[in-house]
Amino acid sequence: MPPFDVPEGDPFGPHNLPYGVFSPAGSDSAERRVGVRLGDHVLDAGAAARALGSPYASVLARPTLNPLLAAGRTVWSDVRRALTGWVTVPAHRQVVEPFLHPLSSVTMHLPFEVADYVDFYASENHARNVGQIFRPDAADSLTPNWKHLPIGYHGRSGTVVVSGTDVVRPSGQRKAPTDEAPVFGPSVRLDIEAEVGFVVGTPSELGRPVALGDFQEHVFGLCLLNDWSARDIQAWEYVPLGPFLGKSFATSVSAWITPLDALDDARVAPPARTHALLPYLDDSGEEPGGYDLRISVAINGHVVSEPPFSGMYWTAAQQLAHMTVNGASLRTGDLYGSGTVSGPTERERGSLLELTWNGRDPLELPDGKRAFLEDGDVVTMTAWAPGPNGLRVGLGEVTGRVVPRD
Amino acid sequence: MPPFDVPEGDPFGPHNLPYGVFSPAGSDSAERRVGVRLGDHVLDAGAAARALGSPYASVLARPTLNPLLAAGRTVWSDVRRALTGWVTVPAHRQVVEPFLHPLSSVTMHLPFEVADYVDFYASENHARNVGQIFRPDAADSLTPNWKHLPIGYHGRSGTVVVSGTDVVRPSGQRKAPTDEAPVFGPSVRLDIEAEVGFVVGTPSELGRPVALGDFQEHVFGLCLLNDWSARDIQAWEYVPLGPFLGKSFATSVSAWITPLDALDDARVAPPARTHALLPYLDDSGEEPGGYDLRISVAINGHVVSEPPFSGMYWTAAQQLAHMTVNGASLRTGDLYGSGTVSGPTERERGSLLELTWNGRDPLELPDGKRAFLEDGDVVTMTAWAPGPNGLRVGLGEVTGRVVPRD
Repeated sequence: MPPFDVPEGDPFGPHNLPYGVFSPAGSDSAERRVGVRLGDHVLDAGAAARALGSPYASVLARPTLNPLLAAGRTVWSDVRRALTGWVTVPAHRQVVEPFLHPLSSVTMHLPFEVADYVDFYASENHARNVGQIFRPDAADSLTPNWKHLPIGYHGRSGTVVVSGTDVVRPSGQRKAPTDEAPVFGPSVRLDIEAEVGFVVGTPSELGRPVALGDFQEHVFGLCLLNDWSARDIQAWEYVPLGPFLGKSFATSVSAWITPLDALDDARVAPPARTHALLPYLDDSGEEPGGYDLRISVAINGHVVSEPPFSGMYWTAAQQLAHMTVNGASLRTGDLYGSGTVSGPTERERGSLLELTWNGRDPLELPDGKRAFLEDGDVVTMTAWAPGPNGLRVGLGEVTGRVVPRD
Repeated sequence: MPPFDVPEGDPFGPHNLPYGVFSPAGSDSAERRVGVRLGDHVLDAGAAARALGSPYASVLARPTLNPLLAAGRTVWSDVRRALTGWVTVPAHRQVVEPFLHPLSSVTMHLPFEVADYVDFYASENHARNVGQIFRPDAADSLTPNWKHLPIGYHGRSGTVVVSGTDVVRPSGQRKAPTDEAPVFGPSVRLDIEAEVGFVVGTPSELGRPVALGDFQEHVFGLCLLNDWSARDIQAWEYVPLGPFLGKSFATSVSAWITPLDALDDARVAPPARTHALLPYLDDSGEEPGGYDLRISVAINGHVVSEPPFSGMYWTAAQQLAHMTVNGASLRTGDLYGSGTVSGPTERERGSLLELTWNGRDPLELPDGKRAFLEDGDVVTMTAWAPGPNGLRVGLGEVTGRVVPRD
């Protein structure tokens, strides 16, 4: 089948066009190019732009998405419009066809240089589950601040890796309540967290908060994100300054960044707010800030959970407004995670901690029981969103295999 | 006085030679050069290297220290040896003299691109003071993990600023125990934290911990660091995931990075360990891991504290080993802060939180009382270390003025 003839209903049709960075077959992995996904092909966007004499070659013929991210909302929309033409208008198709590579032949890379990485905690179901597991005697499973601000913390941007990268099981200190002293060894409670990551394009100035309504000016797009977590390391280290080594060994992101422009039909209102919000977070007068993303989490090909992103209490726009309200500036390449996505039912929980209720109720997989991850396990997250004309917009998968330290 | 004739006993003599990045007088601030400080002059190191035909022009004739940082320990030592010759040997002096700029005439910049920023919590006196202030009824002022691992967390690298940068008072949510709901406004408990920052040069591989003994292979040098903190914002937000907006608005570092090679005479043994350490942290068989740095903190020119770095319980080598023991990789430009430096006496506390005991005992300054910082206050930290032949090694100052948001 000619590469442009994407099957009807393909979630990576011309209505989607996510961006990534790839090396063509047979090239050195240092040879990196911006690619745009169409069905099961990748368009070398820089080469196509040059062949067509497009002015956008300056942001597309690059080894990373950062120049495109830095170019700002107007350029993002213009480039998307141009790309749509290149893959749909016959005269353009003819010119760019030589620059299509089969997806199966290329190597995908981390699509942008991550500046700061922040992780939030925005699912009420997740936060309540965690509260009930770790503080069973508390009057409220949420901490008192939870409904007033989107809780977040900084993570390690240097260990953000692209989908497909093996994850080495981390070692570290852990201490069970019954242990007299901490012991050291490979984590025995290695977990996942199904999240959505938001990618900042347009920077902001130090000392100048970004308002709720300016979300689309600063955020380019989103990706799937697996916030690998070693629960035993985390439990022992995290009081009083938060998670550190329990998270910093790896954070996987999908190879494809879906532009917000592809997700206009997926916008939904967030859940009704149960507490009055301070003005900088009050989104009652704003465009709907949620996104209806249907996530699926599989272990070794077996689906274990389908977390719905639409139920997240805090929106990405609120997270951005909160993150900058103290005057903190944004940089091109900043990445922030939504926090674990968990829905109200058991089958919608985004972590093994919740799915197995801290290991009490192991999952029954075709290849045996799982309380937490075993070496060799492959975790794969996929997602789609409602698109135009009844189409689905596919998000790139994020996958990774757990390997022991050699 | 000729610029090479540094007064006897000057803490920035040829025994020191810290590195920074400057713009010469009258140039655009985009014109950046690596500078080496000698007394009250800055040597344009790249221009000097070129004039002398030095092979080190490749790492010195750059707009940032990152290429030098990435070059590794052998190059660091060789470059330092070369520089020492350039500023002491008469034949070389003659060649490089045109490349000396009066310090007062240049503009200093952030000397390196910060990759990840981590902040530790390594002073036992500080941790006990904080514990007593915030958990007065606890049986132990330290959390149970404190003596077993160097507690740390990731901070915002995008808001690390160079000494001299104004700090805009952050706004945010705060909630006193008696308040029914949080309120929003400028922080009313703006504080400082006197710290030492360590700068990573040589990167490490994902999945490969860095051993205690490899500290000097990876860490290039150190600087002074002021971890500005909004105590009211921090108190409301930090449970359960740690500090976020209470810290992320600004972290100031000195313009000068002192190479570890200049501090060999300042190495001291850390305090006796009261708890057995796991092997990866056990430094009993290692070279002394502490540094005898004498810090001074002044508000509007009035010295309020003299925190001694030599008493830090956890060393920078232990922090590096801990930070990577889970397999997290290092990048060139990673920065990690020691945590607030506080000594055992009242006059040695490194934060206003401790100096005023959470505002209960305001400081008496010549211009009035201070519980926390007021707009217009200028905070300046300086330090020196014992050097060779009885000389002092000066660290670059870190200073910043608090300004209201306009």
